[in-house]
Amino acid sequence: MTSPQNGTDITVRASAQRLDADDPLAWLLDEFVVADPNLIYLDGNSLGRLPKRTLARLAEVAEQEWGAGLIRSWHDWIGEPQRVGDLLGADLLGAAAGQVLVCDNTTTNLYKLAAAALDDVLARAADRRLVVTDRGNFPTDRYVLEGLAAQRGLRLRLLDLDPLAPITPAVLEPVLDDRLALLSLSLVDYRSAALADMAGIERAVAPTGAHLVWDLSHAVGAIPVELDAAGASLAVGCTYKYVNGGPGAPAFLYVRRDLQERLRQPIWGWFGQQAQFGMGDDYDPVPGIGQNATGTPPVLGVAAVAAGAGLLAEAGMAALRDKSVGLTELLVALHDAWLVDLGFELASPRDVAARGSHVSLAHPEAYRISQALIAAGVIPDFRGPDRLRLGVAPATTSYTQVWDAMDRLRSIVAGGAHLELSAARADVT
Amino acid sequence: MTSPQNGTDITVRASAQRLDADDPLAWLLDEFVVADPNLIYLDGNSLGRLPKRTLARLAEVAEQEWGAGLIRSWHDWIGEPQRVGDLLGADLLGAAAGQVLVCDNTTTNLYKLAAAALDDVLARAADRRLVVTDRGNFPTDRYVLEGLAAQRGLRLRLLDLDPLAPITPAVLEPVLDDRLALLSLSLVDYRSAALADMAGIERAVAPTGAHLVWDLSHAVGAIPVELDAAGASLAVGCTYKYVNGGPGAPAFLYVRRDLQERLRQPIWGWFGQQAQFGMGDDYDPVPGIGQNATGTPPVLGVAAVAAGAGLLAEAGMAALRDKSVGLTELLVALHDAWLVDLGFELASPRDVAARGSHVSLAHPEAYRISQALIAAGVIPDFRGPDRLRLGVAPATTSYTQVWDAMDRLRSIVAGGAHLELSAARADVT
Repeated sequence: MTSPQNGTDITVRASAQRLDADDPLAWLLDEFVVADPNLIYLDGNSLGRLPKRTLARLAEVAEQEWGAGLIRSWHDWIGEPQRVGDLLGADLLGAAAGQVLVCDNTTTNLYKLAAAALDDVLARAADRRLVVTDRGNFPTDRYVLEGLAAQRGLRLRLLDLDPLAPITPAVLEPVLDDRLALLSLSLVDYRSAALADMAGIERAVAPTGAHLVWDLSHAVGAIPVELDAAGASLAVGCTYKYVNGGPGAPAFLYVRRDLQERLRQPIWGWFGQQAQFGMGDDYDPVPGIGQNATGTPPVLGVAAVAAGAGLLAEAGMAALRDKSVGLTELLVALHDAWLVDLGFELASPRDVAARGSHVSLAHPEAYRISQALIAAGVIPDFRGPDRLRLGVAPATTSYTQVWDAMDRLRSIVAGGAHLELSAARADVT
Repeated sequence: MTSPQNGTDITVRASAQRLDADDPLAWLLDEFVVADPNLIYLDGNSLGRLPKRTLARLAEVAEQEWGAGLIRSWHDWIGEPQRVGDLLGADLLGAAAGQVLVCDNTTTNLYKLAAAALDDVLARAADRRLVVTDRGNFPTDRYVLEGLAAQRGLRLRLLDLDPLAPITPAVLEPVLDDRLALLSLSLVDYRSAALADMAGIERAVAPTGAHLVWDLSHAVGAIPVELDAAGASLAVGCTYKYVNGGPGAPAFLYVRRDLQERLRQPIWGWFGQQAQFGMGDDYDPVPGIGQNATGTPPVLGVAAVAAGAGLLAEAGMAALRDKSVGLTELLVALHDAWLVDLGFELASPRDVAARGSHVSLAHPEAYRISQALIAAGVIPDFRGPDRLRLGVAPATTSYTQVWDAMDRLRSIVAGGAHLELSAARADVT
């Protein structure tokens, strides 16, 4: 069994160690707080690790800016949601300045942009009654769209797309006509990591006159996203996964510059107002991306996003993607070598070009296996009914950790250790 | 000139020092980070100070819970928005458990509750076309209501209420009929600190069949709020003022228990979903207050709110109100003694029972005076065109600080120091 990377036998641990020794991003691992060096964390696709600089920055913002600077610090804080948005745009999202804002959470941002998009479409063509997404799209995306459709008397259609096949214009063909008001998709599937064809889908949707909103939550920081180049118009995403912004860190939204005057998000707040402290009678939003702000931004959270994104920017998304490819390829190769005979099935695209930075493995005993893995010092992610998601965040995962995790997984299932655990689920996240 | 508190001459500094010596809440001052002991901070009504325990708690949440606990910490984090809501309810808001949730920002929460209230009213009586608030209400409240009215084809009516007179049922009389769909008011006026008659207004609005949403931002932590006793049904508020939750800390919302099944907020997200990690097809919200959650809560911010609110709970709202009354009474007495002849006018209610915890002074040169005060080591708050807002947060302000600030204010204006400054405004907050 040879690795796709270097022709050596990847079932030997030394080959993973050699990949780590040659890793140009090895320095990044030391940039994170690692409380337990024996813990293998394969859940950075759910909650990213804590960068050391973030810990220092949070203390600085709290003690110096809030504690000592008090109200005077708003002089700097007030511009941060746009400055950090520009940083995300430039280094992670392929978006020119003035199109990305850090604010609210992903759910609220999707609500804002989807509502604005629907209002825009319906003002032009009130007979468009269809809101479309994938039945396998992330739950909060579906619920937001379900709510908006219900409130506007529209129909939400859930497509039954193959989670293993990247979403292409071809599979969307049946809904790409003049009944479509809004389509919303995730760039990286949260279950399988399948990568949608953003540019192709944008080109296919454009002639229909409908709007398209992307959720980049499982993509940003894991793969290079090129919003401007793909001709994307609207997107949202979270920063607590690969961007390592921390639990509940503020999300972001992207509105292409030429749409900013036309679309009007529904939550009219004072942080989107021109001459904010003039306290004027009527809402008169600022002309740019800032009109998508609602109320007071979470200053500590925005600072943590800046710190996390800055670290990825130093590494560079191309290098991060290279490492991510290496890690998932190693994982898939070890699956093929060790796990197929143990009842596992690859539940992510086999083609690395169509895959994000996590790998899903299907197994009927996935829940108990995930519990046994945790007991063995590996944190995976379980998604019902039968999926083990193994997130290999390129900034915080080594090749040897992937090897060791797969080795323990093999030992557990081969030895039946998981069968000694209760099958009763107590899943919180 | 004698003080209302103790019959001594309050124009003598020693009398303020005596009030501090007798202050049962003096211990509280030591609970906060004070980087510059010479700075007099009278802007806690805009951004509260940093509690020492919050600094420690933020470090703990970041380093231990996020850094070391990683995804496992969601086991505890997930219940915090409701637990901290219950804490706010019990100790600051007079609300029984299960009615307060910490989430999003005040703007978004007002949008959610006002939208839910409008949908509820309009479903029963589609001919109600009026949304009403005070023209002097906080800008973001007016903008949210303006947006909702525009989106639903309703009319927003701005009442021209006297900012010095507490809002009573009598002044609302002209709009309290069956045209009214929604009324929204602030309990404490952000300009004058005038206190509305919550219970009286609730009783007057109830028979109309309209909904009423309160904004408690300038009240919570400054005065004891009694939501349940007042018969309130809906309220929102921020936590970065008197609750000392930090810049952009998450806000809260209150929905009276018997309304929770009837009202449905518009942002349908996975944190409001039953069996959240079942990832079910359809939105099926949890039965209680939790259905008002949207996306992932800001964990660091929620922890800071808990720390700040916990500190106020230890002090007790009754004691905090007593001190707040003492501080604003001293301020008003010194205004009367020193400032009337210098062109100042009291722009807050003279009756302490009708006043929150800040005092506004009107002066044509308020902007330049505020700049001169800052140069003299006192941070006030300027609100155009001619208001100096002096916030005396009871947890973080001493009587001697109020005395010194008023003394410096008198010296500046008597000596004309402010006239040497530019009148060009550069107000950010």
